[in-house]
Amino acid sequence: MKLLRVGTAGAETPALLDAEGVLRDLSGVVPDIDGALLADDAALGRIRAAADAGELPALDAGGLRVGPPLARIGKIVCIGLNYHDHARETGAEPPAEPVIFFKAADTVVGPNDTVLVPRRSVKTDWEVELAVVIGRTARYVESAEEALAHVAGYAVAHDVSEREFQIERGGTWDKGKNCETFNPLGPWLVTADEVADPQNLSLKLWVNGELKQDGTTAEQIFPVAEVVRYVSQFMTLYPGDVINTGTPAGVALGQPEPKPFLRGGDVVELEIEGLGRQRQEFKDA
Amino acid sequence: MKLLRVGTAGAETPALLDAEGVLRDLSGVVPDIDGALLADDAALGRIRAAADAGELPALDAGGLRVGPPLARIGKIVCIGLNYHDHARETGAEPPAEPVIFFKAADTVVGPNDTVLVPRRSVKTDWEVELAVVIGRTARYVESAEEALAHVAGYAVAHDVSEREFQIERGGTWDKGKNCETFNPLGPWLVTADEVADPQNLSLKLWVNGELKQDGTTAEQIFPVAEVVRYVSQFMTLYPGDVINTGTPAGVALGQPEPKPFLRGGDVVELEIEGLGRQRQEFKDA
Repeated sequence: MKLLRVGTAGAETPALLDAEGVLRDLSGVVPDIDGALLADDAALGRIRAAADAGELPALDAGGLRVGPPLARIGKIVCIGLNYHDHARETGAEPPAEPVIFFKAADTVVGPNDTVLVPRRSVKTDWEVELAVVIGRTARYVESAEEALAHVAGYAVAHDVSEREFQIERGGTWDKGKNCETFNPLGPWLVTADEVADPQNLSLKLWVNGELKQDGTTAEQIFPVAEVVRYVSQFMTLYPGDVINTGTPAGVALGQPEPKPFLRGGDVVELEIEGLGRQRQEFKDA
Repeated sequence: MKLLRVGTAGAETPALLDAEGVLRDLSGVVPDIDGALLADDAALGRIRAAADAGELPALDAGGLRVGPPLARIGKIVCIGLNYHDHARETGAEPPAEPVIFFKAADTVVGPNDTVLVPRRSVKTDWEVELAVVIGRTARYVESAEEALAHVAGYAVAHDVSEREFQIERGGTWDKGKNCETFNPLGPWLVTADEVADPQNLSLKLWVNGELKQDGTTAEQIFPVAEVVRYVSQFMTLYPGDVINTGTPAGVALGQPEPKPFLRGGDVVELEIEGLGRQRQEFKDA
């Protein structure tokens, strides 16, 4: 299923994009799309049954804002340098084990919302990423095989990053990853049963119409199952948590000088195969 | 005011500890203690008025568990190496600007709840910290003077840390800071009007009855007001966010070998002047 949330920020309605591309209202079936729903097989079953029975009213998609497809996000665990090609372009050794950093849930906006370039930023950068949404509590998961059973679904995430704040201002990467609006998410949360192989998805990102990133999750150093297993040794993952699994090559940081960092007025579009497309206008904060 | 939350984990009742040390039930006045309450002067005023009028029923404190004094915490921003004496003991240069890392809100437990030593941990460490609770949205705050107006109150936090995970496993400090139960908070949220000077509070921590940390917030490299101003340049702070402002000297990491890291069975007690006392038994996860 393709689950999404549409309407004004903070007052979104749960919806489903059906197989014919028609937007369907879920508000009569479930109150919202969040961790509690994703952990509730009965509720997910009710959505499926209502969809199959043709009982879900159509929504007029025209002019409707698309919000992030998940409400009440817990934590956002991010994996750094998780693509062979991206590690190479940043001059970093491929890590021996996953690099973890955090984004706060309050950085999440809808897939087409405005993204703000922070004040005094000179190195705002893009990163298309496969987001993994947790549906079952994952705590000391023993094997990668077991790990995927904890994944409710997948979405497109834009891990917007300020490189000076991240790398040159002391402390950890978190300083450049948590500016307001820095995590567009969506348009859809695609349930795991509809993603045949999370390690075979193409990811693309364009800046002002020019293709900048053109990768595949096959290049991930640590695949999704291993990431979930690994992270669960250090922290407990709960339904409604999100893991941003890293970005492929092609970010501004990896380009020759002068590096084409983002400014107010730039437009970024990004897409993952089967998970939908985002488009953000960047504005000065 | 000393605000707190008592009762079973996940179903706490809001309460007030009055000037006579009597526990008072707030559930008839406000639904809970969270960011929304702290941003609501009228609701805080109702609590004060009811307390002054002697209208709040007494609660029997006997046997009542104390929970964290804040529900629905947003993000927990942590400041590293923020005491001159602690920077010295870890062999680090005092940072030129605040070091930021993150703890997830799901690590928060009550002040006397059990803390779990993670599986395969050999370097679990203690850190008594002054926690700052945000009550007003802080975004690009211009001056340290202005910053304190965004603070709703203060509490004791225990920033439990696994040093091997934090320092020796690649990536950022977040990997050793986010194990389950790693952020005991409370017992009270003391409103800012009752903390005359946040830079003149003594902090103490004992392990199995032995005094290990004996510091003062006067030793902070970046005082609370500057921390709030600084952090607000990189991310927006919202009501219900928490800042752990760093720990003074005396952690296990700073001791001679063999360093006395924590194990199941250890008992840690900690206290900040005017903000109350915590006591945790450590158990193996």
